[in-house]
Amino acid sequence: MSFHETPVFPRGFRCASRNVGLKPSAKDLTLFTSEVDAAAAAVFTRNHFPGAPIILGRETMRGGSLRAIIANSKVSNVATGAIGVEHARRMATAAASEIGTTPERVLVSSTGVIGVPLPIKMIEAGIPGIASELQGDPLVGAEGIMTTDSHPKALSCSVGEATITWVAKGSGMIEPNMATMLAYIFTDAAFDAPTLDAMLRDAVTESFNMLSVDSDTSTSDTCVLMANGLAGDVDATAFRAALLAGCVRMTEILARDGEGAKHLLKVHVRGALNNAEARVVAKSIVNSPLVKTMVHGADPNVGRLLMAVGKCFDCTIDPASTDAWINRFPVVRGGLRLPFDDGTVRAALSHELVELEVELGMGTGRATAFGCDLTKGYIDENAAYYSS
Amino acid sequence: MSFHETPVFPRGFRCASRNVGLKPSAKDLTLFTSEVDAAAAAVFTRNHFPGAPIILGRETMRGGSLRAIIANSKVSNVATGAIGVEHARRMATAAASEIGTTPERVLVSSTGVIGVPLPIKMIEAGIPGIASELQGDPLVGAEGIMTTDSHPKALSCSVGEATITWVAKGSGMIEPNMATMLAYIFTDAAFDAPTLDAMLRDAVTESFNMLSVDSDTSTSDTCVLMANGLAGDVDATAFRAALLAGCVRMTEILARDGEGAKHLLKVHVRGALNNAEARVVAKSIVNSPLVKTMVHGADPNVGRLLMAVGKCFDCTIDPASTDAWINRFPVVRGGLRLPFDDGTVRAALSHELVELEVELGMGTGRATAFGCDLTKGYIDENAAYYSS
Repeated sequence: MSFHETPVFPRGFRCASRNVGLKPSAKDLTLFTSEVDAAAAAVFTRNHFPGAPIILGRETMRGGSLRAIIANSKVSNVATGAIGVEHARRMATAAASEIGTTPERVLVSSTGVIGVPLPIKMIEAGIPGIASELQGDPLVGAEGIMTTDSHPKALSCSVGEATITWVAKGSGMIEPNMATMLAYIFTDAAFDAPTLDAMLRDAVTESFNMLSVDSDTSTSDTCVLMANGLAGDVDATAFRAALLAGCVRMTEILARDGEGAKHLLKVHVRGALNNAEARVVAKSIVNSPLVKTMVHGADPNVGRLLMAVGKCFDCTIDPASTDAWINRFPVVRGGLRLPFDDGTVRAALSHELVELEVELGMGTGRATAFGCDLTKGYIDENAAYYSS
Repeated sequence: MSFHETPVFPRGFRCASRNVGLKPSAKDLTLFTSEVDAAAAAVFTRNHFPGAPIILGRETMRGGSLRAIIANSKVSNVATGAIGVEHARRMATAAASEIGTTPERVLVSSTGVIGVPLPIKMIEAGIPGIASELQGDPLVGAEGIMTTDSHPKALSCSVGEATITWVAKGSGMIEPNMATMLAYIFTDAAFDAPTLDAMLRDAVTESFNMLSVDSDTSTSDTCVLMANGLAGDVDATAFRAALLAGCVRMTEILARDGEGAKHLLKVHVRGALNNAEARVVAKSIVNSPLVKTMVHGADPNVGRLLMAVGKCFDCTIDPASTDAWINRFPVVRGGLRLPFDDGTVRAALSHELVELEVELGMGTGRATAFGCDLTKGYIDENAAYYSS
């Protein structure tokens, strides 16, 4: 799969972003639009404390059709009760009125601090006129939804006559479950909403749902796919493959920008009893603070890999059939640490991309998890997030 | 429960520790002995890659009787295969020969780096003569088993005519499951091995098994209770209460000395559907990197508490009935962040002991979990543990 060098939108999609006063000067509000109604599917966080936009979004998605997405950063509108949901509705209404559609066709997202009232009046005052600023660079939309992200995140590719474009944000409170922090996917291919829903769920299972920066599952996770059909029919198999490839690539971009991260960590588990057990073991390794600090320090303490496999109490594991590699260099065979040269493993761990592979020898299950190292930068970003 | 100001041993127990060359100069080998055979029970790690001493220890404990414990630090003898188990047997044999008992009555422990061969010849050369150094201060034994611990850990109390003494080590790779890193409990009360086993499992469930420094479960976790009966019969109810109280106190000591920790974190969950769900929620909060960094930075970002409750996907949670307190100060009611003064919550979070309470309003289940904050010190200790 090859991605465009500079991300572009599919036919009919545009975006704009503004500062409306939630942040001191950075952009804090983004509008994405399709010039015609688009079939749509979405997956949301499984957290028991979903944000008000998630509560409203589940209702909105029943229609299976979207014209726009309005999203703000800085305040997530979570743990805000009935008034929070009312604020989310007012955001949808203001955006719908600006672009000439109904609120039922506008998906709302908010990301930022939990438990603080949404400054809805600032947002309502900031929406009029934004439609006149709509333009074709997806990165402009990505800018308005950044929190601790170090850069705006967008990606696009072609499938036949159609284009798929991903715009996302997220770098902390990331172990998505049924979705990632905020990921918007736009296409001009023509598919109906149930087909989009099935394709989105399949792609998310192997991409965003295998991502973990810090094992903490956000209350705002949202992943939406909008298809406005302006490019007509596209081969479904090619589309599915492109959708998955882009979701995986965006997952890597998010992992690489994990709070404080210096390394992208990919954990490949194969030979598990089944794919479900492979996912559990891969997540255990990618989430282990001791594995993450080992990668950070390029410390060849490979016993920690076995520890992280071994704490998957409910999985089928046999030390005697367990092998492991670090960036293709063998470090464990049959559950035993190989007598490797420390310097070689240290060098393997020093690459920006660290790939850990584990073969369990139990079956044909496989999975890949995506994450990053654990550094002092993570502590810095999170010991004063609310206050800064 | 009041503990002795200076820990002492029960009748008949003594210990000695030495440097035998595993570490440059610090003590690295400890022997604990009872002058008569003691009834004994133990719980070990559930990690799928148990250390060689655990494999041997499960065999040893079938006898239900111990005379001594021999333990080394620096190298854990894990992921070392059949030769590792042979080394553990040789440690037991050397210690048995030194004190005049059989290897089947000697429990072996090793703690330190995973996957490195145990320097068994250094240990065998270091054991002869150690019996002549046996003495009555439990802290001397605690010294020989330290790894990243900042101080030796021992505790004792009286129950009727008997004494109970706890000696433990541990500060990282700590989310015990069925036991803690290494915890040895000695008493001169008289109980048979099955009774000790039941009492130990009950106490461990509410103490060591509710401890997490970093969510990583060690391959060497061991908790042993030895009762030599020299004080005769003791009221079983009083003994159970004292055993639990001491296990909880030692759990707090271990949590407070978590790698890099500045705060002891206690998370009380009540009103859960049952105790099992209360334990899941309490562990989720105590393990959340975002809650731990919030405590570290005294940042009143209380929405993270709700996030950590809400990511317990399989538990019965209703935002509307969820309340929370930080050091008794109310911060959440009915799932909504209360409009508190930031300075007050910041002050509450600045105590060395931070107690987080969550009421779920679902039933009568309750649990307390023990942990610590996440600091740059944790990164420092673990980015170069193997190499340092």
